[in-house]
Amino acid sequence: MARDDGSGRTTVRDAVLQLLRAFGMQRIFGNPGSTELPLFLGFPADFEYVLGLQESVVVGMADGYAAATKNAAFVNLHSAVGVGHAMGAIFTAWKNRTPLVITAGQQARSLFPFDPFLFSARATELPRPYVKWSCEPARAEDVPLAIAHGYYIAMQHPRGPVLISIPADDWARTCAPVEPRRIGAAPRCAADALAAIGAALDASERPAFVIGAGVDRDGAWDVVRALAERHRARVFTAPMSSRCGFAEDHPQFAGFLPAMRERIVAALAGSDLILVLGAPAFTYHVEGHGPHVPAGAALCQITDDPEIAAWAPVGTSAVGDLHDAVQTLLQRPPPRDRPLAAGRPARPRAEASTPMSVSYALQSLADVRRPDDVVVEEAPSSRPIMHGHLPMLKSETFYTMASGGLGFGLPAAVGVALARPSARVIALVGDGSAMYSIQALWSAAQLKLAMTFVILNNGRYAALQEFAPTFGFAAGAELEGTDLRGIDFVALAHGMGVSDAVRVARPEALRDALVAALRSTAPALVEIVVA
Amino acid sequence: MARDDGSGRTTVRDAVLQLLRAFGMQRIFGNPGSTELPLFLGFPADFEYVLGLQESVVVGMADGYAAATKNAAFVNLHSAVGVGHAMGAIFTAWKNRTPLVITAGQQARSLFPFDPFLFSARATELPRPYVKWSCEPARAEDVPLAIAHGYYIAMQHPRGPVLISIPADDWARTCAPVEPRRIGAAPRCAADALAAIGAALDASERPAFVIGAGVDRDGAWDVVRALAERHRARVFTAPMSSRCGFAEDHPQFAGFLPAMRERIVAALAGSDLILVLGAPAFTYHVEGHGPHVPAGAALCQITDDPEIAAWAPVGTSAVGDLHDAVQTLLQRPPPRDRPLAAGRPARPRAEASTPMSVSYALQSLADVRRPDDVVVEEAPSSRPIMHGHLPMLKSETFYTMASGGLGFGLPAAVGVALARPSARVIALVGDGSAMYSIQALWSAAQLKLAMTFVILNNGRYAALQEFAPTFGFAAGAELEGTDLRGIDFVALAHGMGVSDAVRVARPEALRDALVAALRSTAPALVEIVVA
Repeated sequence: MARDDGSGRTTVRDAVLQLLRAFGMQRIFGNPGSTELPLFLGFPADFEYVLGLQESVVVGMADGYAAATKNAAFVNLHSAVGVGHAMGAIFTAWKNRTPLVITAGQQARSLFPFDPFLFSARATELPRPYVKWSCEPARAEDVPLAIAHGYYIAMQHPRGPVLISIPADDWARTCAPVEPRRIGAAPRCAADALAAIGAALDASERPAFVIGAGVDRDGAWDVVRALAERHRARVFTAPMSSRCGFAEDHPQFAGFLPAMRERIVAALAGSDLILVLGAPAFTYHVEGHGPHVPAGAALCQITDDPEIAAWAPVGTSAVGDLHDAVQTLLQRPPPRDRPLAAGRPARPRAEASTPMSVSYALQSLADVRRPDDVVVEEAPSSRPIMHGHLPMLKSETFYTMASGGLGFGLPAAVGVALARPSARVIALVGDGSAMYSIQALWSAAQLKLAMTFVILNNGRYAALQEFAPTFGFAAGAELEGTDLRGIDFVALAHGMGVSDAVRVARPEALRDALVAALRSTAPALVEIVVA
Repeated sequence: MARDDGSGRTTVRDAVLQLLRAFGMQRIFGNPGSTELPLFLGFPADFEYVLGLQESVVVGMADGYAAATKNAAFVNLHSAVGVGHAMGAIFTAWKNRTPLVITAGQQARSLFPFDPFLFSARATELPRPYVKWSCEPARAEDVPLAIAHGYYIAMQHPRGPVLISIPADDWARTCAPVEPRRIGAAPRCAADALAAIGAALDASERPAFVIGAGVDRDGAWDVVRALAERHRARVFTAPMSSRCGFAEDHPQFAGFLPAMRERIVAALAGSDLILVLGAPAFTYHVEGHGPHVPAGAALCQITDDPEIAAWAPVGTSAVGDLHDAVQTLLQRPPPRDRPLAAGRPARPRAEASTPMSVSYALQSLADVRRPDDVVVEEAPSSRPIMHGHLPMLKSETFYTMASGGLGFGLPAAVGVALARPSARVIALVGDGSAMYSIQALWSAAQLKLAMTFVILNNGRYAALQEFAPTFGFAAGAELEGTDLRGIDFVALAHGMGVSDAVRVARPEALRDALVAALRSTAPALVEIVVA
């Protein structure tokens, strides 16, 4: 079917594989279907196929992998239904700002007129609005260009997923090879906006910093800490932040902002300048009233996201690269001397009990993990307790999802472990979260990853039960669809090849179980029965 | 916040619940999140919440339930991420023509300007193109009208899913109640088109019927059989049909059309008229060439789907109600006498072996199931073998998915079992399919359904491996991402509360295991190790 076999031409398959090599995307996350098979003909030895048993697991693994490698991950999904199954995870990747180049196998072009089996009738529309770009090239020979285009879009800030739909018959066609290009990193903030923020910061008497996921994503821990210390600012973590951008044991660390307007204003009270770095201002979960910042306080924001800058209700925003912007602020003359604000009060140690409290369980984990260990967390009801008992201390050691959608934790942990074989990765997930994507255990077993799964099993969707009074439910009232009794995670682990799995119900057994699981040379799972 | 508390007004919540009662939708399939909770305040005793642990399971259960009850099922999903996780199953429901009224919890309206946590930014766009209609009412008081509108759209032919996005703060607002309306069933085919088809049928010497899912969906078994017997037609099942519309032991039953153009033409050779009832003409899986029907044959089609009628490449189509159309054809004068065409040749019995063949396993199931038992199948590589060894004999006893997307089988079987407590429902799924939505076992256990799960475990995505030579792979060549070793379904069942689970590897143990599982009073699982 090739229209040109002249010198310099290659197949679409080979041109795409060459691009993937150039972009460092030699792991293919996927679950195959018939319309993807032609990609695998003569599968090259320098590529690795990472199989997930459902597409939400596939994309979750790719999300964690891309976040940890700081490069787009390549995903290959099956036609409409594979993309469909993945849409929840694609939404999470969108909110996480994770670059993904997602391809979907389309039916052969000659079948399009006949609504064939497995046809994705409007393939570029299906993933919207949660891709930065989607494309089904009009001609087979334009597929490699579309892959390159998608990669460059995914990698530009704010990063995110893209989707390219590829007809099954395109892979064997001929085309011209595509040379990889270089596109600069995120643009720098406009100088006048940065100068205004710098002047406001210098003039401030009691500044507070609010640290979002962008700080960790952009590798800006060191410059942000330097700026906070220079200005003696109180430092808060932004509401629902999916990453940690400031050491939680730092004396200036003041705590975690909740996702509620009035409580944010209360927490920030006393500051006259709020500098938000790499975060929205602010992420709200429930309705609020009144001002968005304390009376008399100004708000300044540095973000790489024009949308986030646009909807912020008050204050001054600079849009551009965070690391560069903070470095620029550090180059200003030394600010006035300010008193050092008090950090968080010390938390009391949790006591052992049966059943264990979440605070005891997490404190036990904090006692035995190393600060370099990576925690991939999805235990919404336990997160406030984690904030008190399991502090994150270093860059790139904490990942959760920014979307509020369950199912990210287990597969993302597998992806991070795959990306960072020298790190110990701990998946810390609730029972409800774990059941969303329990199939990730199988992938961990197949990949023989030396990683640790900690399941906090409270037998319910606790976050919802605790949230219900916000909507007028009586405390403790029965809530439909939130009871998760009768799940045995050790049996589930065994069923998927994770043979190193234990259930811990007594506090005196926990420490040893965690120590063993953190030293495992294969996937190990600890199910902790908590109150 | 109510703007009117005058007489006759109610809350949005109560108005919606009243409509759901009127529409017979008192089971709510869902997985809750915070933005859905207000619906559950004071959850009425005449409603039942059916919890799935991931949204693809939720929608799969609703799909089976709606198909079996012949009424739309009500689904409540969580915001963007819940709808996202469900999109694969929504695509399947779209292809299955299953009516679903899907609601999604949206953030409170006052938060929309601030891109809040859990916001579905373009909620009506997310499910497209695989809903018939999607809506986020501009005002709280229009939510009940939107539910009614959606129900009527979902139930009109061709049926399918709709989605309504409902802000969390809407449920407590006041509104006028909405009276349920009556809208007629599918329109009847145009008389002239039916007359042309009737004349062609009368003039035919060797007619062949092709039976699609529409026959079973529309309850047209009896009239279709009468028409086939009257005309002495050979009867084929349409390619990839998701339902069975003709008894597979009938002497005129001639077999199953494959989804390949040339092979369809070969199978239909010898017929001068092809009458396609309730199916596309035809569903293709791989590229083909040449004519779509045998030389000299005419094609006639009766379908309720204008799209399917529009893209058929040849022939005459009538668009409208199938049952009525066939009845109309039966009222024509008796046709010429024709010789009775030969049906399918008898299949030889399968022999026992270790490991067992799929044909032996399915033959064993056929030996012990009753013809009234309902099979919900998703074992793509085994389906051709099923066609030979596990014949379907009655209406509404066979369901599979029309989409080609895995993950429907287990949850749909749960939904059918919930809808038909007096029937024995058998989920017949492959290992790869089962792992897509294994969480459905938990729902079956919680619902205490007396149903049977039969897992055909061949340790691989066999359908893909068998399909690969079509794309030029050497037979038996290794194929990335198709090896599924190391899954223990008995352990998985135990982990989710299905305690009655056995693994059968020897043929002499199979019959007793199946008999016991078909008599169970709770969910029972038989994992069959097949070659």
